[in-house]
Amino acid sequence: MLVTAVTNKLKIRYPIFQAPMAGGPTTPELIAAVSNAGGLGNLGAGYLAPEQLRTAIQEIRKQTDRPFGVNLFVPEEPTESEETITRMTDFLNFYREELGITKNPLIQKSSESFEEQVQVLLDEKVPVCSFTFGIPPQDVIRAMKQNGTVVIGTATTVEEAKRWEAAGADVVVAQGSEAGGHRGTFLKSVSQSLIGTMALVPQIVDHVSIPVIASGGIMDGRGLVASLVLGASAVQMGTAFLACPESGAHAAYKQKILLETEDATGITSAYSGKAARGIQTAFMNDMEHYTGDIPGYPIQNAMTRDIRQAAAKANNPEYMSLWAGQGLRLASDRTAAEIVEQTIKQARAEVKRIALHGMNDD
Amino acid sequence: MLVTAVTNKLKIRYPIFQAPMAGGPTTPELIAAVSNAGGLGNLGAGYLAPEQLRTAIQEIRKQTDRPFGVNLFVPEEPTESEETITRMTDFLNFYREELGITKNPLIQKSSESFEEQVQVLLDEKVPVCSFTFGIPPQDVIRAMKQNGTVVIGTATTVEEAKRWEAAGADVVVAQGSEAGGHRGTFLKSVSQSLIGTMALVPQIVDHVSIPVIASGGIMDGRGLVASLVLGASAVQMGTAFLACPESGAHAAYKQKILLETEDATGITSAYSGKAARGIQTAFMNDMEHYTGDIPGYPIQNAMTRDIRQAAAKANNPEYMSLWAGQGLRLASDRTAAEIVEQTIKQARAEVKRIALHGMNDD
Repeated sequence: MLVTAVTNKLKIRYPIFQAPMAGGPTTPELIAAVSNAGGLGNLGAGYLAPEQLRTAIQEIRKQTDRPFGVNLFVPEEPTESEETITRMTDFLNFYREELGITKNPLIQKSSESFEEQVQVLLDEKVPVCSFTFGIPPQDVIRAMKQNGTVVIGTATTVEEAKRWEAAGADVVVAQGSEAGGHRGTFLKSVSQSLIGTMALVPQIVDHVSIPVIASGGIMDGRGLVASLVLGASAVQMGTAFLACPESGAHAAYKQKILLETEDATGITSAYSGKAARGIQTAFMNDMEHYTGDIPGYPIQNAMTRDIRQAAAKANNPEYMSLWAGQGLRLASDRTAAEIVEQTIKQARAEVKRIALHGMNDD
Repeated sequence: MLVTAVTNKLKIRYPIFQAPMAGGPTTPELIAAVSNAGGLGNLGAGYLAPEQLRTAIQEIRKQTDRPFGVNLFVPEEPTESEETITRMTDFLNFYREELGITKNPLIQKSSESFEEQVQVLLDEKVPVCSFTFGIPPQDVIRAMKQNGTVVIGTATTVEEAKRWEAAGADVVVAQGSEAGGHRGTFLKSVSQSLIGTMALVPQIVDHVSIPVIASGGIMDGRGLVASLVLGASAVQMGTAFLACPESGAHAAYKQKILLETEDATGITSAYSGKAARGIQTAFMNDMEHYTGDIPGYPIQNAMTRDIRQAAAKANNPEYMSLWAGQGLRLASDRTAAEIVEQTIKQARAEVKRIALHGMNDD
């Protein structure tokens, strides 16, 4: 046990969340392994169609009877001009030519529907649901809570955390600038909202009364204890689990995670239309020089899907999205259970070590 | 006492450095107050002429017999085209007109000389010397160390920290992206080297054997203990001391520090020619739309000096440089001694609290 407000509320053994990483990494195997090890596995369901989501939840339940979570993207209605779309299509055709796939493909409207995703989570009575990109309508939060689901918001600033608390969230994730993947920012600009975890966590803790989960750059027992000291009640670790055998990340992506360094990432909206941190790729470099507008999420995400898939098939990481945080040198390919156990073991050793610094009064 | 590798090496009571903030804040009163309280006061001497530097050191020594440090900027030779200079002069004349000061002023070549500054530190046998913007020539480091001065480097990436260790530094400051003021980056680009403190500290600790000082977003006892847990041997706090009565920061600047929030800062090279984090101002906003090249340090610094000074005289913070980190909501106007004492008191309470999380084996 390692008792905090979050372990109590969620009835989990250890205050370790495996981050919901949409797009492949968070397999039922990974989620179940983390939950079975005493943490909380989380499904990144942002891109899943309702039936895929239902199947994934049922798969998870076959492999664990412990609590787990599901993360949804709160949608916006992007309205892009035809010119913006045409120009991006032309630009992306260069990559299609290089990868040998059909130019000017028919872009499929996303099959995920937020309302239908929410209904699946209600039907399935998932223990925990977290949201990214904004606050869903009040009736969604109310229905979830009445259904026994713990509702978690994602905040990148103090003001966002306060909005989540006011909206009824049970817990809030403080997403520091180190974090890999999509930024949860929904009030100010992303660049204004890139606050380092060390600064963000205590400031959020001071301004809300719900429990706070630290995320961003946390990779091991040192990061766990440091976060608890800053006032967090749990940590969320993504990059730490990306390269483990249960992760569904592509082999070329896993290899990059294990080889790259802390200064290898950048923030881009080139892949999905929403800002996210990932290992710098040729596609990101190219898009930095793109002079047109990048369509918003989910349009850009749909427009680059065929390219990312063809690149994955060709084992070419340079056109794939390689979401990762800034703790890259600490990534490992141990199993998910080993990562949880090692984190807790190191955390306990750190607590003992820190007490030996002579912290007594004198 | 609070014993770490750094408190042992420097013979100080507490592992708290007051950051060397060049340009006014680090008065002899502030430095002496921090050193007398058991931390290490540091003079930001980057802009000081040799005789100003000597006088400041003598003033510090009148007020404390404890160790203190001096920080120098390691110079580069910027070579700007006449066109770059002329265009910037024209642009800056707009502010001069608004502030009612002479247009096209004669830009004084900086009176600080790195070699002369180093000689003053050798003459005065300062206990600690830290460097920013790069690694000085080997003979400088050797002379300092032979003279009994502890040499400290500033690193924003693991590779920079390794270079400092190889160059003979006794200690290295890990400057996280949250930190206010100038970025110490000297290998890759500044944007690649904005690594959050939570991610940066453990990765540097794992790759060097000299002691590491954590900086960036650390404002109180929580940040101190979190940093020690991450493997640091001390913390460096700047923004935490900026608004205290002993700080020489302008009253309008102190007011901003006390009122602004974690999302109020940005990175700019508009004031000095080197990237630094400060509270967003009208001047920074304007310069984001400047299409020419910004001259390098120290040229741009010399070119904006009259504007910053006139703005200060007019109590107009919008054209002043307001260096600050991302921990702004935690800033206070207590005295420097109170800040040191409160940090230590809170650190001790945090160590006790964290042990109560049930970190025992089970």
